[in-house]
Amino acid sequence: METQPAKQPSTKHYDIVIVGAGPVGLMLSTCLARWGYKIKHIDNRSEPTPTGRADGIQPRSLDLLRNMGLKSAIMAHKPARVYEVAFWDPPKNGGGIVRTGTWASCPSFIDARYPFTTLLHQGLIERVFIADLEKNNTKVERPWTITGFKSDEKENPEYPVEVHLKHVDETSEETVRAKYLFGGEGARSFVRDQLKIGITHKDPIAHVWGVMDGVVTTDFPDIKMKCTIHSDHGSIMVIPREDNMVRLYIQIASSTDPDFNPRKTATAEEVQASAKKILAPYEIEWERVEWYSVYPIGQGISDKYTLDHRVFLGGDACHTHSPKAGQGMNTAFLDALNLAWKIHAVEAGFANRELLKTYEPERKTVAESLLAFDNKYAKLFSTKPSADTVQAASSESGEDNDFIKTFKESCEFTSGYGVAYGPNALNWSPDHSAKSPLIHPQGTKLRTGRLMINANVTRVVDANVVHLEQEIPLNGSFRVYVFAGNPAVTGQALKDFAKNLADKRSFFGAFQRADIDKVSHHDSMNPHSLFFSFCTIFAAPRNKIEISKALPELLGRYRDCVYADDRGDRRVPDAKAAAHAKMGLDEEKGGVVVVRPDGYVGIVTSLVEGSGTVDALNEYFSAFVTKKLGETRSQL
Amino acid sequence: METQPAKQPSTKHYDIVIVGAGPVGLMLSTCLARWGYKIKHIDNRSEPTPTGRADGIQPRSLDLLRNMGLKSAIMAHKPARVYEVAFWDPPKNGGGIVRTGTWASCPSFIDARYPFTTLLHQGLIERVFIADLEKNNTKVERPWTITGFKSDEKENPEYPVEVHLKHVDETSEETVRAKYLFGGEGARSFVRDQLKIGITHKDPIAHVWGVMDGVVTTDFPDIKMKCTIHSDHGSIMVIPREDNMVRLYIQIASSTDPDFNPRKTATAEEVQASAKKILAPYEIEWERVEWYSVYPIGQGISDKYTLDHRVFLGGDACHTHSPKAGQGMNTAFLDALNLAWKIHAVEAGFANRELLKTYEPERKTVAESLLAFDNKYAKLFSTKPSADTVQAASSESGEDNDFIKTFKESCEFTSGYGVAYGPNALNWSPDHSAKSPLIHPQGTKLRTGRLMINANVTRVVDANVVHLEQEIPLNGSFRVYVFAGNPAVTGQALKDFAKNLADKRSFFGAFQRADIDKVSHHDSMNPHSLFFSFCTIFAAPRNKIEISKALPELLGRYRDCVYADDRGDRRVPDAKAAAHAKMGLDEEKGGVVVVRPDGYVGIVTSLVEGSGTVDALNEYFSAFVTKKLGETRSQL
Repeated sequence: METQPAKQPSTKHYDIVIVGAGPVGLMLSTCLARWGYKIKHIDNRSEPTPTGRADGIQPRSLDLLRNMGLKSAIMAHKPARVYEVAFWDPPKNGGGIVRTGTWASCPSFIDARYPFTTLLHQGLIERVFIADLEKNNTKVERPWTITGFKSDEKENPEYPVEVHLKHVDETSEETVRAKYLFGGEGARSFVRDQLKIGITHKDPIAHVWGVMDGVVTTDFPDIKMKCTIHSDHGSIMVIPREDNMVRLYIQIASSTDPDFNPRKTATAEEVQASAKKILAPYEIEWERVEWYSVYPIGQGISDKYTLDHRVFLGGDACHTHSPKAGQGMNTAFLDALNLAWKIHAVEAGFANRELLKTYEPERKTVAESLLAFDNKYAKLFSTKPSADTVQAASSESGEDNDFIKTFKESCEFTSGYGVAYGPNALNWSPDHSAKSPLIHPQGTKLRTGRLMINANVTRVVDANVVHLEQEIPLNGSFRVYVFAGNPAVTGQALKDFAKNLADKRSFFGAFQRADIDKVSHHDSMNPHSLFFSFCTIFAAPRNKIEISKALPELLGRYRDCVYADDRGDRRVPDAKAAAHAKMGLDEEKGGVVVVRPDGYVGIVTSLVEGSGTVDALNEYFSAFVTKKLGETRSQL
Repeated sequence: METQPAKQPSTKHYDIVIVGAGPVGLMLSTCLARWGYKIKHIDNRSEPTPTGRADGIQPRSLDLLRNMGLKSAIMAHKPARVYEVAFWDPPKNGGGIVRTGTWASCPSFIDARYPFTTLLHQGLIERVFIADLEKNNTKVERPWTITGFKSDEKENPEYPVEVHLKHVDETSEETVRAKYLFGGEGARSFVRDQLKIGITHKDPIAHVWGVMDGVVTTDFPDIKMKCTIHSDHGSIMVIPREDNMVRLYIQIASSTDPDFNPRKTATAEEVQASAKKILAPYEIEWERVEWYSVYPIGQGISDKYTLDHRVFLGGDACHTHSPKAGQGMNTAFLDALNLAWKIHAVEAGFANRELLKTYEPERKTVAESLLAFDNKYAKLFSTKPSADTVQAASSESGEDNDFIKTFKESCEFTSGYGVAYGPNALNWSPDHSAKSPLIHPQGTKLRTGRLMINANVTRVVDANVVHLEQEIPLNGSFRVYVFAGNPAVTGQALKDFAKNLADKRSFFGAFQRADIDKVSHHDSMNPHSLFFSFCTIFAAPRNKIEISKALPELLGRYRDCVYADDRGDRRVPDAKAAAHAKMGLDEEKGGVVVVRPDGYVGIVTSLVEGSGTVDALNEYFSAFVTKKLGETRSQL
C-alpha cells in the first residue's frame, strides 16, 4: 500500500495518521494494520490508560471482538459480567433504601450470544489491541502530539494531508504526509478545533459527576450487580468490576440546580461520606480506592465528522454524553469499524471515493440516537419510579406498559443490536428503486442496515457446530451468504449463480486477486478476491451434503465455509432449517444475503435459476464500485 | 509444607520428587504446586515434546482443564475439534473406498458441556502446564534423570524417600529426600523397573504402528474429520489437527501376521505410498511432514501402582495401549489428579494415610476398562462393518442393536464421562452399611464414584448464569453442594445444618483454618476450612432469594456460591428446578451432595431438620479423616 512519490523523498509517507490511542483510534489502527496499511499512530499519554475511564463492553461489541479474535484475550482478565440491573429506592414509608425491582441487562427478546455487559478497565482493553497491532508491526508512538495539519488534494492528490507532530517533551518533531488523518483524541479534539467544527448541545443540561473505582467491604447485597440507587440523600449508580472492584457514579451537581457551578467538585472523602448516607441502612467501607475523578459533562455532538473526506473525526471527538449507560467505548468501536472498511474499500481499488461520504451520516445518526437515549435514560435515572411500575417491568410477561416499551427499545440500543443504518447506496431498503424484482424477497426477517441474525449451523467439512455470523472473520471483505435451501431444488440455481459470478463483468469476476494463481489451497476466505468471502448454507442434514457434488466448483472452493442448517433453534422451534427460518428465507428455495464487511446487511435477494441473482447483485454493487458491471442476462 | 529435619542439614528436602514432565507428571506437579507443596520435578528431555505424541483431549478432560483455569490457554492455540467420526470402507462392488456412515464423537445422550474431542500437539499442552507451574515458582529441571532411590519409613518417617538424580550430560548430580516419589516417565519407567513391578499383557497381540503428522493437499472430503478407513490395500485412521495439519495412523504389522516382526519398520515415503493406495480414488500429496514415527506397541498394565504408598507410578508407566482412541493423555491426567488430592488431604492433616491406598484400586480399574475398551475398539477397527450396520448406527434413533450398544458404552468411556470408581471409603454406594437412613435418598440420579451431573444455575450475588459443576475451582477441597429446595420448606433444616456444622466435633468444625481470623472477606471458597467449599442452590427464582435472610450466617459466608435453580434444561423440560431435577433431588426438600476434590460424587444425603444430615456426613468423613467426629444429635 506504500508508495513514495518521487517529488518528496525526504518526507515520510503513510496511508493514515491516527491521533489518539483510545478505543476509537485503536480499533481503526488494528483493522487497517491487519489489512496491510502503513500507519502513523500517536498518543499524547506516555502509557495506556492506567486507571478509570470507560469499562463497559456491550453484548454486540463482544461479538465484534470475537470476530476479530480478541475476545478471549479480553475475557482472560476475568471481567465482571452484568446480566441484570437492580433498582433501589426509598421505601414508601421513608427511611433507607429497598430494592424495588430488577430487570435483564440484555433481555431474552434480544437474540444475543452474550447477553451481558462485560466490565473491564479500559487500559486492559487497550493493551489487547496494542498487542495485536504489534503483531502487525504497528506501534503507538507516545507521548507524541499533533501540532498542525493541512489537507490539499490539488497539491498532492495521492498524499493530500501534511501533518506536523512533536514529542510531548519537545525533544523532537516530525512532518509526515498521509492519505488520511484521523482525530480520535477525545472530547477536546485538536483536529476538530483546527477544522473549526462546532459542537451542538442536544440537551442544554450539564452535569458534574464523581466516579470512584475501588474495593469495598459492605453488607449491601447487590454490590456485584449493576444498580441505580435513589435515596433521600442523593443517587448513585453501582457498576461491578473485575478483581472484586466496584465503580460508583455519583451525580455531584446539575445545571438544573439553582446554584449550579460546573467547576463544583468533591473530595474522595466527601463522596464516600455521601455514599454511606445514600446506602444506609447498609454499611460500606473502602479497603482501597483505585481511581477517583470529578468531571463536568454535557451532551454534545460534532456538527461534522469530516470536511473533505481526508481528515476524519470519531469517538468522543464527535459525541459526548453521560457515562451511565456505558456506551462511549462501544460507539467509538463502531465509528472506527465503519470508517476502516470504507477506507480499505477505496484504497484497495474496489469502491469509489464517494463511499467515504457514507461515514458521517451513518455514524452521526447513531450518535444522535445515543444522545436521545442518554437524555431519556438520564430522566429515568432522575425520576423515582413507583414500586408498581418497576414490579411490572421486571415480570417480562403480559402487556407492556409505555415504561417497559421505552426500556425495551433502550435495551436493544444499549446492547448494541439496535444500531440501524438508514437506506443509502450500501443498505438497500425494500423501498429502493432497484430494477431487479428479486431484491428483498417477501418474508425475509433480515433488515438492511442491521446486523445479520445469529444462527447455529454445522460446518460440513469437520462437523463442527458453529456460529454462522462469526464464520467470516473481520477481513475487510463483503460476506456473501448463499442460503441454498434444499439441494434437490436449488441445484440449477447454484450452477447458474456460479456461472454468472465467473463472468468477468460480474461484481465478483471484475475484482479478482492479482495473485490468484499463488493462493494457498487452505485459504477458504479469499481464494479469488480480497473483496468477497462466501458461505453456503444448505437446508439439509450434514451427512447428506457432499461438497463436490452439491456445489459448483467456484463455490466449492470455499469448502471450509459450507454448512448444514440442521441444528434447530428454540426461537423457531417448528422450523426444519432454523437458520433459513430465522432469516425469513424459504427453506426450499433459499436466498442470498450480502453483508457488509462490518456485519450489517446490505441487500437480500432471491436465489433463482438464470442470471437474475447475479444481475441483482451487480446492480447493488454498481452503486459504489469502481468498475462498470454488466448485466449477464444476455449470455444465457 | 517444608521442614528441614535437623539430622540431615546437607540434603535438600522436598514434598515430592516427580520424574517425567509429560501429561501425568505435569498434572500432578501443577495441582501440588498450586496447593503449596515443594516439588522437585525433572525430565530427561531437554525441552517439552517438540512434535508428535498424544494430541487428543476428551470432553471430560476439557471440563477439568476449565476447572483449573487452563482451558482458554489451550483453546488459544485453535486446536481442531472432532464432533463426528466417519467410516470409509470398500464399496460392495469393490474398488476404492466409500463413506459408509458417520456418528457423533460424543453423542447427545452424554450430557457434555463440550461434545467434541480437542486435538492439539502435546508440546503446546505441556507448555500451558509449565507456564502455570512457573506462576507457582515450580520449574521442570531438564535434562535430568533419576539414577536410583530407596524408601524407608523407619529410617526417616517424615522424608522416607531418598532419590539420586543426575544431569543427562553427567555434569552434576544430586541426592535429595522427599515424602513421595512419582514415576511418570512413560512406558519404559525406571522407577517401575527398580521396584521390580511387572507388566501384565491383557491382549497378547502386539502391533507396529506408523504415525505421520503433516499438511496435505487432497480431494478426500473428510480430511478434517476423524475417519477410520478400511480398504483392500490396508487401513488408516485420520485425525485432524490444528493449523491445517492431519495425523495419519497406519498399522504396519500385527503379531497375528504370519511373518510378524516387532522391529518391522517403514520409511515415510513407504507410508505415503501406502496411504495413496488406501485413499484411492482420492488423491493425496504432502506439502510438509512435521513428524513421522514407527513404533511397536502392546497392551500392558502394571501389576502394582505402588508398593509402599510413598513411591507411586502413573500414566504410561502403568498402562500402554494403542493410540487410536486418544485416551493416553486423558487417563494420565486422571491418574495424577486422583493421586494429587489424596496426597494433599494426607499431608495437610485432614485424611488418614490409609487414603492413599485407594489410588491404585481406583485407577487400576479404570486402566483395565481402558484396555478392555482398546481391545474391543481394535477389533472394531479391524473388522469391516457391513454398510447396513453402519447406516443403522448413524441414525441414532429407534432400537439399538448390539453394535450400537457397544459403541454407546464406548462413547461414554472415551468421552471421559464413563469413568466410575467403585464403592470404597470415599464412594458410598447405596449398599453401604451406613447407620444413617438419610444416605442415598430415593430417586437421586447421582451415582457415587461418578462425576456430578452438569447443571446451569443463576448466581444470586451477580445474576450471572453459570455452570454449577465449575463453580468451585480445583482447590483441593471437598465440595459440599447444599441443594436447598424451596426456601419456605427448608428454612429450619438449613438452620439446623449450619448449627451442627459449627459444632467442633463435626467434620467441618473439626478442621477449621488456623488463620481463620485473617481470611479476606472476599474469599468465598475457603473462609473457614481449606478442606471444604460450599455451594447452596435454592429451587427458587433469583430475585426471590435474599442471601442474608434465606441462609444461616455460616452458609451465607459463602455468598458468592449461592445459586437460584431457575434456568431450565432441555433434558428435564417439565422441571421447575432443573438442577434439582437433574440430580434426582426433591425440588421442595432438596438434599446434600458431597463431591470429592476431583469432581466425583462421594455421598448424597437428604436435607432434614435436626442433626441428621450433619450426623450422616460425620459418619461419611469418619471413614477417612484424622480426627474423631462426634454425633451431635444429643445436643439438640
